[in-house]
Amino acid sequence: MVQLHANERIDQLYADDIQIIQSKDVFSFSLDAVLLANFPRLPKKGRIVDLCAGNGAVGLFMSRKTTAEIIQIELQERLADMAQRSIQLNELQNQMRIYTADLKDSLTYIAADSVDLLVCNPPYFPQQPQSTKNPNPYLAIARHEIHTNLDEVLQMTSKLLKTNGRLALVHRPDRFLTILQIMRTYRLVPKRVQFVYPQKGKDANILLIEAIKDGKEEGFNVSPPLFTYDETQSYTPEIRQMLYGS
Amino acid sequence: MVQLHANERIDQLYADDIQIIQSKDVFSFSLDAVLLANFPRLPKKGRIVDLCAGNGAVGLFMSRKTTAEIIQIELQERLADMAQRSIQLNELQNQMRIYTADLKDSLTYIAADSVDLLVCNPPYFPQQPQSTKNPNPYLAIARHEIHTNLDEVLQMTSKLLKTNGRLALVHRPDRFLTILQIMRTYRLVPKRVQFVYPQKGKDANILLIEAIKDGKEEGFNVSPPLFTYDETQSYTPEIRQMLYGS
Repeated sequence: MVQLHANERIDQLYADDIQIIQSKDVFSFSLDAVLLANFPRLPKKGRIVDLCAGNGAVGLFMSRKTTAEIIQIELQERLADMAQRSIQLNELQNQMRIYTADLKDSLTYIAADSVDLLVCNPPYFPQQPQSTKNPNPYLAIARHEIHTNLDEVLQMTSKLLKTNGRLALVHRPDRFLTILQIMRTYRLVPKRVQFVYPQKGKDANILLIEAIKDGKEEGFNVSPPLFTYDETQSYTPEIRQMLYGS
Repeated sequence: MVQLHANERIDQLYADDIQIIQSKDVFSFSLDAVLLANFPRLPKKGRIVDLCAGNGAVGLFMSRKTTAEIIQIELQERLADMAQRSIQLNELQNQMRIYTADLKDSLTYIAADSVDLLVCNPPYFPQQPQSTKNPNPYLAIARHEIHTNLDEVLQMTSKLLKTNGRLALVHRPDRFLTILQIMRTYRLVPKRVQFVYPQKGKDANILLIEAIKDGKEEGFNVSPPLFTYDETQSYTPEIRQMLYGS
């Protein structure tokens, strides 16, 4: 058994038979993490890295679908500690490890050019004086580019990935052009995007993008769209499948 | 009455009450032209230019929704002649003009920095020795980058548009990254994309993209997806609306 701290709870992701320690006061995984975990084709073995791991949701959700080792990096000790206990709770100590570290120091823990798949659900919002940040510092750091930014994430991604290793990133569509530009700077060649729309007739609010380090320039696909909610504000079947497995 | 040549027919776009002269031997408009005509918000007045106009479909379809003048440029005399007769057929001589010209010579006919909206349905396929071209020269020129290419189209677009004038382009998703790069070269700032999927569960096969000349870098939207066919291989309601008006 693992210990739960004040205001923590254990949630179940039924689709992947995973239990995850969460806390409204600190961090709870979002749909974005579920979408990211389901976006890339997973390597059967080798090494997967999750930068900006939060409470470990993305790695935990992927763990049942691969025997690859999963290494997570999370800056905030309180969140990394939740992830560590979730790893124990699911008896994944042989497959998963989480390091409390600034992602800029990832090479202390992970060899350069060694990663088959890197996943990342980074802070979405630029750090600007006028931006309205969450007064909760845990959430502010997770959501705003306070301690890292897209440039740092993609630069480190490029260092960690093997040649032809893949990045899967979830972000907001309004940052799409910036993401493409920075990817180019760091030899990450975009190969596939998928847009998620809150419901029919609405603009996309989530972007999933896959890139290959030193990939060929040819070939770029736009995968089938996903819708979060149907007309009755219930999850659509494809989202239910990711969350509940049916 | 206008004269029809051998193997020509008059088709009706019911949604816009437009008649259009077509020929299977030479050129018939595609769904892409209908999608493009319906993609941008049209200026109520001012000047709209259609480069690579073919048999004039895009301009003809837009004509009922604006009082702006519509100037079309088409390289192939045989196609421009069909467009000219369609303009007469619909009594649009006061609103529309078509010039038989290479788009590189557009400034002979249209003043620089004078255009509010430029629409273009250019040849989609790169000119490569190994590419399988249509043996019909009319269709080969319309579909392959034989006489023009993306760079020329976007360079001329930038010259013709007013500051803050808009480009609406239809193309293939696999050229998306190239389009974004060339747009940047010519001060065209992408602001909105819409992807068209042949049906649910399939990758997008048509890209619609809107850019603003010297636009601000902030703001980029991914409009609701369109699907061409439903499960019974019939047009979806949104496509039927564009084609038949109901």
